[in-house]
Amino acid sequence: MSPKITTELLKQLRQVMKNPKYVQEPVQAYIVPSGDAHQSEYIAPCDCRRAFISGFDGSAGTAIVTEQHAAMWTDGRYFLQAAHQMDSNWTLMKMGLKDTPTQEDWLVSVLPEGSKVGVDPFIIPADQWKRMSKALRSAGHDLVPVKENLIDPIWTDCPQRPCKPLITLDLSYTGVSWRDKIVALRSKMAERKVVWFVVTALDEVAWLFNLRGSDVEYNPVFFAYAVIGMNTIRLFIDGDRMMDPAVREHLQLDSTLEPEFKIQVMPYGSILSELQAVGAGLSPKERVWLSDKASYALTEAIPKAYRYLTPYTPICIAKAVKNAAETEGMRRAHIKDAVALCELFNWLEKEVPKGTVTEIIAADKAEEFRSQQKDFVELSFATISSTGPNGAIIHYKPVPETNRTLSVNEIYLLDSGAQYKDGTTDVTRTMHFGTPSAYEKECFTYVLKGHIAVSAAVFPNGTKGHLLDSFARSALWDCGLDYLHGTGHGVGSFLNVHEGPCGISYKTFADEPLEAGMIVSDEPGYYEDGSFGIRIENVVLVIPAETKYNFKNRGSLTFEPLTLVPIQTKMIDVNLLTEKECNWVNEYHQKCREVVGAELERQGRHEALRWLLRETEPLGRVQ
Amino acid sequence: MSPKITTELLKQLRQVMKNPKYVQEPVQAYIVPSGDAHQSEYIAPCDCRRAFISGFDGSAGTAIVTEQHAAMWTDGRYFLQAAHQMDSNWTLMKMGLKDTPTQEDWLVSVLPEGSKVGVDPFIIPADQWKRMSKALRSAGHDLVPVKENLIDPIWTDCPQRPCKPLITLDLSYTGVSWRDKIVALRSKMAERKVVWFVVTALDEVAWLFNLRGSDVEYNPVFFAYAVIGMNTIRLFIDGDRMMDPAVREHLQLDSTLEPEFKIQVMPYGSILSELQAVGAGLSPKERVWLSDKASYALTEAIPKAYRYLTPYTPICIAKAVKNAAETEGMRRAHIKDAVALCELFNWLEKEVPKGTVTEIIAADKAEEFRSQQKDFVELSFATISSTGPNGAIIHYKPVPETNRTLSVNEIYLLDSGAQYKDGTTDVTRTMHFGTPSAYEKECFTYVLKGHIAVSAAVFPNGTKGHLLDSFARSALWDCGLDYLHGTGHGVGSFLNVHEGPCGISYKTFADEPLEAGMIVSDEPGYYEDGSFGIRIENVVLVIPAETKYNFKNRGSLTFEPLTLVPIQTKMIDVNLLTEKECNWVNEYHQKCREVVGAELERQGRHEALRWLLRETEPLGRVQ
Repeated sequence: MSPKITTELLKQLRQVMKNPKYVQEPVQAYIVPSGDAHQSEYIAPCDCRRAFISGFDGSAGTAIVTEQHAAMWTDGRYFLQAAHQMDSNWTLMKMGLKDTPTQEDWLVSVLPEGSKVGVDPFIIPADQWKRMSKALRSAGHDLVPVKENLIDPIWTDCPQRPCKPLITLDLSYTGVSWRDKIVALRSKMAERKVVWFVVTALDEVAWLFNLRGSDVEYNPVFFAYAVIGMNTIRLFIDGDRMMDPAVREHLQLDSTLEPEFKIQVMPYGSILSELQAVGAGLSPKERVWLSDKASYALTEAIPKAYRYLTPYTPICIAKAVKNAAETEGMRRAHIKDAVALCELFNWLEKEVPKGTVTEIIAADKAEEFRSQQKDFVELSFATISSTGPNGAIIHYKPVPETNRTLSVNEIYLLDSGAQYKDGTTDVTRTMHFGTPSAYEKECFTYVLKGHIAVSAAVFPNGTKGHLLDSFARSALWDCGLDYLHGTGHGVGSFLNVHEGPCGISYKTFADEPLEAGMIVSDEPGYYEDGSFGIRIENVVLVIPAETKYNFKNRGSLTFEPLTLVPIQTKMIDVNLLTEKECNWVNEYHQKCREVVGAELERQGRHEALRWLLRETEPLGRVQ
Repeated sequence: MSPKITTELLKQLRQVMKNPKYVQEPVQAYIVPSGDAHQSEYIAPCDCRRAFISGFDGSAGTAIVTEQHAAMWTDGRYFLQAAHQMDSNWTLMKMGLKDTPTQEDWLVSVLPEGSKVGVDPFIIPADQWKRMSKALRSAGHDLVPVKENLIDPIWTDCPQRPCKPLITLDLSYTGVSWRDKIVALRSKMAERKVVWFVVTALDEVAWLFNLRGSDVEYNPVFFAYAVIGMNTIRLFIDGDRMMDPAVREHLQLDSTLEPEFKIQVMPYGSILSELQAVGAGLSPKERVWLSDKASYALTEAIPKAYRYLTPYTPICIAKAVKNAAETEGMRRAHIKDAVALCELFNWLEKEVPKGTVTEIIAADKAEEFRSQQKDFVELSFATISSTGPNGAIIHYKPVPETNRTLSVNEIYLLDSGAQYKDGTTDVTRTMHFGTPSAYEKECFTYVLKGHIAVSAAVFPNGTKGHLLDSFARSALWDCGLDYLHGTGHGVGSFLNVHEGPCGISYKTFADEPLEAGMIVSDEPGYYEDGSFGIRIENVVLVIPAETKYNFKNRGSLTFEPLTLVPIQTKMIDVNLLTEKECNWVNEYHQKCREVVGAELERQGRHEALRWLLRETEPLGRVQ
């Protein structure tokens, strides 16, 4: 990796920062955050402005350019990568280290008195704006919204914003029609006494209208906003996608409908002016509901007294609880995914000893097997295919420079998943194709114990996911081991592989309580720098649990694994398992045999079936 | 209980609310919070203004009186009590119920346009002021500080503010001199670049100067503030307490000292004007450190740009980590406390079958035995002595109307503790003096498993206490049981029995990570309404743990029980314990035998010693 030369680009940007064509008044600093106008986790190439100006293309980072300086804030995952990708024009600000200044403190320390700091109001979330604006103001500076993004005029070969065809999902996939979703949303709006709801997150727009797209890699979403009133529906979307007869019929654009279900289609770019018109037309006591993560630009369109901001929108919460059709779809998707992985692991077992399989080849092979399955759309994230020391890099993605050959002497970690039309998968298995050491087995078994502790946990209705995180760590902690990531995230249903509002993490964020029908991952791990990485991940469904005393009818919950891929028994030190844990493994493998075995049989994949049967032999408990 | 008749009082208060002698402009509503000017949990009688005006004397509640209405907000613990204690002038606002308005929303709904809402700026914490002021302003009203408390002019028989003699603690108790504490505090101030630190919490003043008092029942504190500069120390305290030669010598008031250690003693009531003078004299970039829970009045004395507010002060954090002298003192206090409880339980075992022991008698007897121990000062909280159904009332305190006789047919729960000059105790034991039912034993055993799970937990340095809370619940959850309170709180060293900044709770508050030397309680429970209550509480010390792999030198922690009182084995269903849990109980009892046994022997308490030996027989594990 050689760094991107940015001297010329920075010069141009600094000119633009003073050019009255773009700014009302010159700005002495310009902030280039990651992210798009929808606060997406994954973004389209046209939104990778921070990567363009700096060369650093990690998933998290904020660039700030002043007349004299250029600085990049990023976290521990990316210190090395950022240092490699950026030239000497840039100062790397290592977040989380004690001596690293915050962006605000740094700005205050370098700016001349009374400076203006510019930022694209569409990219910065309202809550971040508020914090930064306050800090700058108290030091005598001003944060100012710069309407035209200042990277765009110098990004001459900027790719077009994607505008790919849409997929319509019928009731057999979604369980609920978009009309019924609108009705439910309006009833939540009435409860909170709001008259408008603004949908800004891409997966929320997709979910609400039972549509999918492919504007952002791995995420079946499309660029759009929606504004829902008690009697109106406005969808802001570009391109000729609305010309597609299937879409027109799905949205009933040409039917005679009750006016409250008539969708007005408007240009994507008109959201701000339309929202301003909404804001201007409000009567006293009328309120508009937005996510508190919505962009500053859209939030400001509604006068402050009329705003109703919440961390999670009613769509986010409704989307998280999967209905029967979605749950069944997720089950089907996970069975197909398991078929593909049985094929892959059977193939790896034969090929690895030959010394010809690299991390990239293995990842490609995984995609190949998945793509053979019905309703496969694309991967759900970049495959983490890592062997030996690469396994210890938690967010590793093999590239030619790092690509390592799998061998019978190293642990192999595969974290991968796909989008099927009926569901989204995300599974990690850690395998050894030779003979694991006692230490490797010991670590693997602690991780497995943590995985089981979460998966088999019984907890009362109303429990938040973060209260389960320590269960995943207890066995590791007892021996003085740990892992530095959360234990689980919400998973969408043919939607984003990471979604809120629930999760399982030691970080106490405002997660919503777990409910039956929610789907999360369960993925403890252990990483030995320079040696190996271990992670065992299933996607699990929250289900009601039967208990002896049932919490005075408060009810209990537990998890059902949707992922049905064998956990390599060769890696388990059976002596470290309790009887209960041993039974859990055997019952899990029995279910893999029955459910995935039947599908392998049906698909005539006999060799993979034999592999599955061998890998799911019950553990013989020593003792 | 008959309600307090408040008609006349409310009439008087409403007159005062319009009387220019007390208010610059009439206020249309007046807020009477619980609490004193130091945001204490326990308050002196002269500060019980909310109880005076309403009759409701629970520990939590806020009264608001308007020209037409009088309303009281309190939580589920007190719905019944408040309803009994208040007359029909009052509306009870049941917090936590869906339809209960917030104070702000209620005010907005009842007030005429452009109203003024008054509150004593010394009683309301700055963070609460901010929230309420914002909500009222956005509805067109004003929150105004009313300097003189409006209850005081109508409270003609208000008790005097206590002003009791002080106790000086020498190095053998505190381990660190007040001078060294000032030096350490100033170094923290220098780190954060602040030039003044304002001590507002009573236990922080007491800790800093190695002084104790008895102005508030159960809490060995005294009314005072302190303001620490880099070269000055100001102590705001009333009465002739500073005439006491022991105190003068302790504080070196009459010695020739370096000026930076010279304590200026000032009247308690002059804090505001002195702080305003400090605020007025600040140079640019000089900052003043306050707790964000400090009163609005004191916070406002410092201009906004100069304030540095944190949720936990450096004193709060330093105080939580006990040094060797404090730890040894806590150990001694807990041994003495165990001696008293062995005496008590031995006595109860003989007396209960006679049917003559009531909850109040048992509580008094516990105090009597404690008071026989060296350096006993007072109880550390009101004893919870509860039998049968009373045990299910978590904050129960026996009074003549509820006083129940202990019997061989009911579970008895005793949650009690004391202040000794060398430490503070807090212990709960649940006993049966007859034959417990299988169900009672089952529930007790789950609670015990939870207690052990926390006490024996090993976790990495830097772990916050709330991450351990679920360990205490897991065994209960498995059977569909739970308890609706946190698992543990910080404990002071001859100071408040509840102290921050650490704890073990499912409520995610901003607790500080646990550190070796911190002391918390471990007290899971189970409560069956109308039948019984079970709780097992030890005070435990955070200590370094030895682990196999030691977190790559990050280090591990675990707990050492300081409380050494037998856990009734009769209540344990041994079949529900794992081998590890069984061993924990046996080792714990072995330690009780050795340590407390030796002290009982030394004190010549032979009958209690025999009781201890019998109660600490090892569990025979069936299986």
